[in-house]
Amino acid sequence: MASLELVRQISRASASKIVLIAIDGLGGLPLTETGKTELETANTPNLDALAARSVCGLSDLVGAGITPGSAPGHLALFGYDPVSCLIGRGVLEALGIDFALGPDDIAARGNLCTVDENGLVSDRRAGRITTDKNQVLCRLLDGQEIDGVRIIVRPVKEHRLVVIFRGSGLSAGVSDSDPQQTGVVPKEVIAVKPEASRTASIANRFVARAKAVLADHYPANMVLLRGFSRRPELPTMTDIYKLKPAAIASYPMYRGLARVAGMKVLDTGTTPEEEMETLKQNFKNHDFFFVHIKDTDSAGEDGDFYRKVDVLEQVDRALDKVISLEPDVIVVTGDHSTPALLKGHSWHPVPVLLYSHWCRPDGVSRFSESACISGGLGRMAATEIMPLAMANALKLDKFGA
Amino acid sequence: MASLELVRQISRASASKIVLIAIDGLGGLPLTETGKTELETANTPNLDALAARSVCGLSDLVGAGITPGSAPGHLALFGYDPVSCLIGRGVLEALGIDFALGPDDIAARGNLCTVDENGLVSDRRAGRITTDKNQVLCRLLDGQEIDGVRIIVRPVKEHRLVVIFRGSGLSAGVSDSDPQQTGVVPKEVIAVKPEASRTASIANRFVARAKAVLADHYPANMVLLRGFSRRPELPTMTDIYKLKPAAIASYPMYRGLARVAGMKVLDTGTTPEEEMETLKQNFKNHDFFFVHIKDTDSAGEDGDFYRKVDVLEQVDRALDKVISLEPDVIVVTGDHSTPALLKGHSWHPVPVLLYSHWCRPDGVSRFSESACISGGLGRMAATEIMPLAMANALKLDKFGA
Repeated sequence: MASLELVRQISRASASKIVLIAIDGLGGLPLTETGKTELETANTPNLDALAARSVCGLSDLVGAGITPGSAPGHLALFGYDPVSCLIGRGVLEALGIDFALGPDDIAARGNLCTVDENGLVSDRRAGRITTDKNQVLCRLLDGQEIDGVRIIVRPVKEHRLVVIFRGSGLSAGVSDSDPQQTGVVPKEVIAVKPEASRTASIANRFVARAKAVLADHYPANMVLLRGFSRRPELPTMTDIYKLKPAAIASYPMYRGLARVAGMKVLDTGTTPEEEMETLKQNFKNHDFFFVHIKDTDSAGEDGDFYRKVDVLEQVDRALDKVISLEPDVIVVTGDHSTPALLKGHSWHPVPVLLYSHWCRPDGVSRFSESACISGGLGRMAATEIMPLAMANALKLDKFGA
Repeated sequence: MASLELVRQISRASASKIVLIAIDGLGGLPLTETGKTELETANTPNLDALAARSVCGLSDLVGAGITPGSAPGHLALFGYDPVSCLIGRGVLEALGIDFALGPDDIAARGNLCTVDENGLVSDRRAGRITTDKNQVLCRLLDGQEIDGVRIIVRPVKEHRLVVIFRGSGLSAGVSDSDPQQTGVVPKEVIAVKPEASRTASIANRFVARAKAVLADHYPANMVLLRGFSRRPELPTMTDIYKLKPAAIASYPMYRGLARVAGMKVLDTGTTPEEEMETLKQNFKNHDFFFVHIKDTDSAGEDGDFYRKVDVLEQVDRALDKVISLEPDVIVVTGDHSTPALLKGHSWHPVPVLLYSHWCRPDGVSRFSESACISGGLGRMAATEIMPLAMANALKLDKFGA
């Protein structure tokens, strides 16, 4: 694969426009009765007609057999190596609540949990307390200052929270306090890098204070921290591709991932139709659009085959609006498969369709897993998608004399 | 992909013979009216019959979306990593005029240009002066000696020239004097590596002298230099593959690239027929032949779809001669695509056909972009071609016990 650095050297700005539609969890598995996946079951005349004018393939997001999380899946779609550009759990959680993480902030994922009279963890999720209760407790924990470091605590859903350590001289090189099991005491946070000893000390002091504050709030009488991490310093998509990129995503985590890649996040509604309307309204102002469709993945995670089919048909109808804008390049793909049969993310390669005037169509006339196998892109790495989109938008110079 | 070092460890000499036919700019794009590329439009019964006995695929020369220059394209075909084995512009220009570059020579590409009374570049190409005039001026500039370094100046076409700095202790780590724009003064050559300061000084003194020599030769009253480079020190194809390789190419640059890879360059004519006759005459003396067909690329660059079709049909007819020699392995492919519709090199993968008695044919019975998609080689990296050719020639031992 061409490295990002090579692409950076030969990329140039131009007026052409690229739309990348990421249908979350796009790939599926066939029902035994019909032999058809969700995408093969859906009635998708627009996607099929576009596929006939496109070059198609099947994409591995991270590697053969590797089931991608949302972060690596999307980083790969944006062209970043998803293995070396790993995003820590704490950062991902902060992105997921639209928290504006500073470059020096250290974020940790937290669980409200239960400890017994001996201090042993008896429930790592504090009986999955309500989000309302979580919000009340986070307000009690929020806003402390330890050794000049401000500690911001934000609730997520149920027992989940994010702790952000904001100050100078901090390091993410510390271990978790979450023991990931019950019947033991929470672990001490330990510096795994020499420069992290102060951070470890501050984290331990925060945990001790939290224990005191939460003492009377059984079952949520303790907090466990894990995934201490700093926002990765990635070159932005403007650095690499000379693009003016925008993101259209209704879920916070994907907006956060887009921000990490240097995209401007546009306000949008939640349905595919509303997202495509946002695209239309902003089409003049950017030359790259990442459009994220969430509900396919949610339906797959719920094991609801036909709800996923339904969302795919909604996307297909909304595609009309994209095509009428006449972008130079349209890519439709996903960040991983989420087969309803597996009720979760999976390793299966994901269909890719790349349309441009210069794409060299390949005879594939149906946008589906089984048709894309025969496409001109073959089985490909997802990190190849952005270089191909850039090439098809005539935004890459020749490499070498 | 198997590294060159691994291939080197398991390669062995044998009597079997490999012919690699590189059809420059082979890949194309379909005409809207017919839906067929140049190769799909051409009548190629010999290539098609050979494809039916071959294993086929589509090859990326550098990477997905990357449009290869001629040098990276060919280096990849010879098995070298085209990104790390980059050949500088100056060296390529010297290769292009068959100049015998020494291992310590530093070569720069030059432009005769026009500067105005204030010394600002007003035309980077001196009005594209004639090659005849260029030859006269290069004789005036040639043969100087500065600080013990001999400076050789050779004309190329129109305003283009090559400057070779020959002496000890030189470095290619210097910047261009060519500002790549008009209305500014030529840049000073600057050392970008500490050991290059003397080279920079010599280059600047040469440029100052050239300005004086050319003062009365308006519009060619100045010279701009770029792409200072040294011949890369690659392991030869004999080192790696234990081959006795020969090159048959009518254009100087490809002969130069073949020399860089350690091939013997054979005298030949210019048509595919004449090149295949050269192959026949020399068939006993070598076990590897690189045959380069240039005119497909030239036709593509000119946007002449049907001239490219015609050259492809010439190649097809000349293939008779190759087949009658019964080489053990025949590879037919290209160094990049040059679709007539794009009038230039492009990123599109290139058809590959590999024939041998041991190739495991794949049902592809037409040598074309759309047919090769279904081939047994799939979409592949061009650097895999040489290991596959070597294996099919039974010249590679088993790896590991």
